[in-house]
Order: sequence, then structure tokens, then C-alpha cells
Amino acid sequence: MTDDTREPPTVVVVDAKTPGNVGTIARAMKNFGFSELLLVDPPELDPDGEAYGFAGQARADVLPSAREVSFDHVLETYHTVGCTAVTNEDDRNHVRFPYSTPADLAERLPTVEGPTALVFGRERVGLTNEELARIDEICSIPANADYPVLNLGQAATVTLYELRDLALEDTQLPDVERVRAPEPALERLYDNWEGLLEELNHPEGKREKTMRMIRRVYGRADPTEREVNTFLGLLRRATERPDRRE
Amino acid sequence: MTDDTREPPTVVVVDAKTPGNVGTIARAMKNFGFSELLLVDPPELDPDGEAYGFAGQARADVLPSAREVSFDHVLETYHTVGCTAVTNEDDRNHVRFPYSTPADLAERLPTVEGPTALVFGRERVGLTNEELARIDEICSIPANADYPVLNLGQAATVTLYELRDLALEDTQLPDVERVRAPEPALERLYDNWEGLLEELNHPEGKREKTMRMIRRVYGRADPTEREVNTFLGLLRRATERPDRRE
Repeated sequence: MTDDTREPPTVVVVDAKTPGNVGTIARAMKNFGFSELLLVDPPELDPDGEAYGFAGQARADVLPSAREVSFDHVLETYHTVGCTAVTNEDDRNHVRFPYSTPADLAERLPTVEGPTALVFGRERVGLTNEELARIDEICSIPANADYPVLNLGQAATVTLYELRDLALEDTQLPDVERVRAPEPALERLYDNWEGLLEELNHPEGKREKTMRMIRRVYGRADPTEREVNTFLGLLRRATERPDRRE
Repeated sequence: MTDDTREPPTVVVVDAKTPGNVGTIARAMKNFGFSELLLVDPPELDPDGEAYGFAGQARADVLPSAREVSFDHVLETYHTVGCTAVTNEDDRNHVRFPYSTPADLAERLPTVEGPTALVFGRERVGLTNEELARIDEICSIPANADYPVLNLGQAATVTLYELRDLALEDTQLPDVERVRAPEPALERLYDNWEGLLEELNHPEGKREKTMRMIRRVYGRADPTEREVNTFLGLLRRATERPDRRE
């Protein structure tokens, strides 16, 4: 989040028929940090049924806090983003074009303050053209031209994944994906390889080229200190061959 | 795809318990252009059951073409990417760190030729540490630190969505998301607004500032020609007020 006071977008599900899909959406919301779920004409959500069964840990908060509201209430309260599988529409179609992709929204929404709702439609037919006509902007997930229609729960999962930075302060992942070994360790590694090449009587004329290749392989792999230490140990043993000593 | 001869990654599901998840994965594969599905220790996939029920149009191709193989076969045949919910691991953990995110893979995999498999584990426990240890690299979806564990079908959907460019030639979406109206149409629009301001006796001293604001709003919205034409018509009528003529 770019601003601590900003609320992440609200999620609205219109006229879902399958409780399992509502549960799947609640779980994705919790996985990606969203909390407010509004339901327009929802199916019955039995605490022992599929909605709660599919919700994972969202069964403890997102799902039981969901509120039933009218479509008009949503339009009056939020800037609405309608999610739909646009199919080859162009600028002659006012209702479904222009559209944004979830990745576009992920860039733009953090720069706008004001309450926003992501609106997902019913299974099979999605949001009707009449509903889309009343909505502020259209979002469409790029997919296979031959079969672009995602299942409702899967479409919401992809959209919420892309917009996670609007809702999550931190992810479970460390800030960095790799901690590259310190340069002195890497230089020691290359020294040890050179030592091994010498020990193996690798042709003098080829050593420079071989060393360049070795540096490039490790260079691309960004090895961690622990990984480098493992190689250092192996190279030392390969060079000294303590097992062969008398 | 960057190369017509390149095969998109194969999808491998290890020891899934729920046929519905296999169907969900097959559907996401079809939505994002993947076709080869391998199953290690799969549940029974009854043509009248949930796997086929959840597969959408993938019930006609991806799912019936799925082959049962051994985990060893996968390791011997492919560069394997194991998908798992890493939780705050760091460089002291050899098995789950370093990792890549799906977005990283989407950047790197198109630059590498060779058969690749995306490997998804069973529900609840995912891939075991023993399985991960035999795999070439780890992929992890950034999610809520308090609840990073996605449902199997949802994790596969997000990963395949991110990697769609490896499998799809084209999406259903037009090449452009907007076709901005031609500049002469936009200039006509601004002229008409100026005409309306004059007609409304908008204070002379404020006109320039108001026009700048109007240009900025339309400038950010990238309106289509059809949208501009709609405004042109409205402005003309607002300026001329034919309804007020005697």
C-alpha cells in the first residue's frame, strides 16, 4: 500500500449461483489481503456447506463478515470495476471497450484515492450488458482466444493476485528472493576452481576460457553463501583428494 | 511465444486427492493455452464426476489426454519448477530458498530452450521437502504473510496466468486496449467546450484555467472516437439548446 489510511478495494459478487465459488473468492481475498466482501443476490451460505468448505481460513473472518447489499448500493458507494471476459471487442462497442487488464489496474489504482469495488458476475454469463453499462470501468483477463472464459472463482483469484499490492503490506516472502554470497567468497570459489584445473592438468591454453565459462554459470545463478560454501568444500576435496592419500 | 517450435511447459500434479482440483487445473491450462497434463498418483477421474465437471471446455482435450506417470519420469525428462508456499525462509534453508516468483519465471523461461515442467503438489501439504529437494528450482506466489497458502487449483491458476505468454500466441483481447480518437476530433471537442463556456458566460478570467482542466480530464481518459462523437453531440445541443428555440 502506498498510503496507510487507504482501504483496499471492496469485492462484490453479483448473483453467484454456487456457494463453492463464494468460498473460493473469500479464500483468495484472504490470501491476497482483501477483507470486505459484498454479495448481491447471493445463494444461501450454509456454515456446513461448500462456501465455508472452500474458504480455508477465510471461513473465520471474510466469509462470516460478508454483507448482502443491492447492486444500486454498490453503484452509489464505489468507483466500480466490472470484471468480464471481453472477446475481440473494439471501439465500436461502448459497453465492453475500452477495458483495462488486471495488470493495468495494479499500476493505476494505487495512484487514486477513493472507495473502489471490484465487481464479479454470476457463473456462465458473468455481468449482463445492462449491469456493465452502469459500471465505471471494465477489467478483462487476457486469456486463450479460443476459450477466454475463466471460472468465476479462478477469475477472481487472478484479479486479486494482480491487485495484491493494494491490500498487502507484506507478503510471506523475504524482501529479497536471493542473498548472493559475498564477493570474497565468490572469488575464493573461482580460485579453488583454478586450483582444481591446475591439479587436473587442464590444458594451459584452455584455462582462461574455461574459467570464463565457470564465472558465467555462477554469475547467472546468484548462489547464496551457503551454496558457495558447499562448492568450496567439494572443490577442496576434489583438488586434494584426501581419500587417495597414503 | 518467442519461438514457434518451442513447446509450452508441461503441467504436473503430484498426488492430488480431489478430482475437482484436477479439473480446475485443466480448465486454467486451457484458458491460458497449456495442453500437456501429467498426473503422478492421481485420484480416479470419473467422466461423470467433479474433475470433468470443473474442467469447462478442457473436458474435451486437456483432461482426457492427461497421462499418468511416475515422479522419477518427470525428474528425468524435464527441467522441473516446484510450486510451493514458501514461508519466510532464507538462505539458511537449502530446500526452499532461493526461490522465484511466477513473474520472475515469466521473464526468464522464454529465454531458455528445453523441456520444462511446472510441478504442483497435493492439497494441504503441497510438495514434500523430499520431493522439493529433487526438483530444479522453486517457485512461490507472493501472498498474505498471515495466510499464504493458496488452494491447489487457485495456485495453479495464478501460476499459469503469469506464464501465459509461454503458451499463448494471442489472447482474446484486441492488440490495443484503447483506440484514442484522432487528434482533430479531440480538438473539435475542445473547441465545442470553449463554445459552450462562451454561451454560458463563463467568466473570461477563468476560461483558460477551466479549459486546461477539461483537456487534462480527457487527456487521462484516452477517449475513443465514438466517445468523443457522443460528447460532441451533447455539447452542440447544450450550446444551441434547440429545445429552447421558438
